[in-house]
Amino acid sequence: MNIYDVNRHSRVIKQIINLNRRTYRDKKGLFFVEGERILEEAINSDYKIKYLICSQSYVKKKNHKLIDRLIYKGLNIYVIDDKLMEEISDTVTPQGIIAVVEKKIIHVESVLNSSANHFLLIVDGVRDPGNLGTIIRTAHACGVNGVFLIKGTVDQFNPKVLRSAAGSIFHVPVLMLDDTEQIIIDLKKAGINVIISHLQGDKYPFNVDLKEPIAIVVGNEAFGVNPKLADICNNLVKIPMPGNAESLNVAVAAGILMYEVVRQRLIGIL
Amino acid sequence: MNIYDVNRHSRVIKQIINLNRRTYRDKKGLFFVEGERILEEAINSDYKIKYLICSQSYVKKKNHKLIDRLIYKGLNIYVIDDKLMEEISDTVTPQGIIAVVEKKIIHVESVLNSSANHFLLIVDGVRDPGNLGTIIRTAHACGVNGVFLIKGTVDQFNPKVLRSAAGSIFHVPVLMLDDTEQIIIDLKKAGINVIISHLQGDKYPFNVDLKEPIAIVVGNEAFGVNPKLADICNNLVKIPMPGNAESLNVAVAAGILMYEVVRQRLIGIL
Repeated sequence: MNIYDVNRHSRVIKQIINLNRRTYRDKKGLFFVEGERILEEAINSDYKIKYLICSQSYVKKKNHKLIDRLIYKGLNIYVIDDKLMEEISDTVTPQGIIAVVEKKIIHVESVLNSSANHFLLIVDGVRDPGNLGTIIRTAHACGVNGVFLIKGTVDQFNPKVLRSAAGSIFHVPVLMLDDTEQIIIDLKKAGINVIISHLQGDKYPFNVDLKEPIAIVVGNEAFGVNPKLADICNNLVKIPMPGNAESLNVAVAAGILMYEVVRQRLIGIL
Repeated sequence: MNIYDVNRHSRVIKQIINLNRRTYRDKKGLFFVEGERILEEAINSDYKIKYLICSQSYVKKKNHKLIDRLIYKGLNIYVIDDKLMEEISDTVTPQGIIAVVEKKIIHVESVLNSSANHFLLIVDGVRDPGNLGTIIRTAHACGVNGVFLIKGTVDQFNPKVLRSAAGSIFHVPVLMLDDTEQIIIDLKKAGINVIISHLQGDKYPFNVDLKEPIAIVVGNEAFGVNPKLADICNNLVKIPMPGNAESLNVAVAAGILMYEVVRQRLIGIL
């Protein structure tokens, strides 16, 4: 039997609280996800779950195929009272189940060796966790084979990012990078066309060939892509806005560009 | 001179707090927006601003072309201390300026008479304010000529919706409707093709002619479009997801479909 009742002074509860901080996540190589659906995605991936925390009413009420599978795998389950679950949960109405998961180390090289026809996304300085999570979710849907986050972007293991990403973190490789210019050099060496989403772009996305290996760059909510990066690449596309709004939300802009890649690549094979 | 110092017991401060509630907004026909940029959009629209609330440090520090223009228009400005501004503001770091604005009554007929080639959006049950605001912002950018919200959708004058919409509420007509079926009948009568975004769609958006007059329907975050509506229309499109994610965020899905309309209509005139 590996189900334990624990209280707020338990080591595992202290760990969950600490895992809200990026420095602690980085130090321990761990993060946590909440809710059954995301947990299912974790189980169906090559990420390793360390342990589970469930509320008393979750353990009592539900149909437990999920928990049975995890117990069978030898995982420890720590049961806490509902009030404590509400305190440690990132959501207003917690689902009653939290899993602590080990980070996976992903190397740029392995991403660059993972496809013959790259479809990469580079995120330069997106700060809102909901935006980054939504971008990762869309990248998964569109079959992106790697998401590179440039320093200054919110951490992909932030609980709010993970919630918006709806389990997609387990299915698309997401890497945080320190050196922006190095990645651009690596991508160009690998024959990948780097395209920047930019309000001063001189081409519409549907006028650029996106069937060849590409990396799309999107930038910060207020300031867009780092001008240095824009200078190096010199390949700016602008999403048409006939309604004359000033700009689009970055997750919507990223979604439109990723869809345009999918559209162009599908038309070829229809 | 129409600048007044007021405190938390003032009638206008009580009104701002009440304007967070939909019932009060509906009763008074008012809403409020925060920040200079959104206020600029309000000034450049046909909405009527009732009065302004500014923090002391906002009034002291800034270059006041904006405020001068509003004083010139005869508007009252109520000045409060910074701490009170923080309390009543919807944001963590308030910009120090709030405007109370009169709602505008928009009729379905006026929207249906406003274009020869309709590009309409119907939102059926989106609950997250950030999602609705982002959808309205994208609709503005894409030149949508009317957004219909079906009962059960979050109110367009909710402060969080207005923040995500980034001023677009002042430039695209947004209407809340009670009767879903009636609007579908009205649209069909007007010769408008109603297209539903649906995971069971049998066509990709780029295989449907979106150059003709259209209305695109997007649904609730968890449940999608009301099945009754889907039955009436029988015209379902699915956004391709080669990456096998379960679904897209609704604001991203709406953005992709609106972009596809823009793309098809622009290609014709390029």
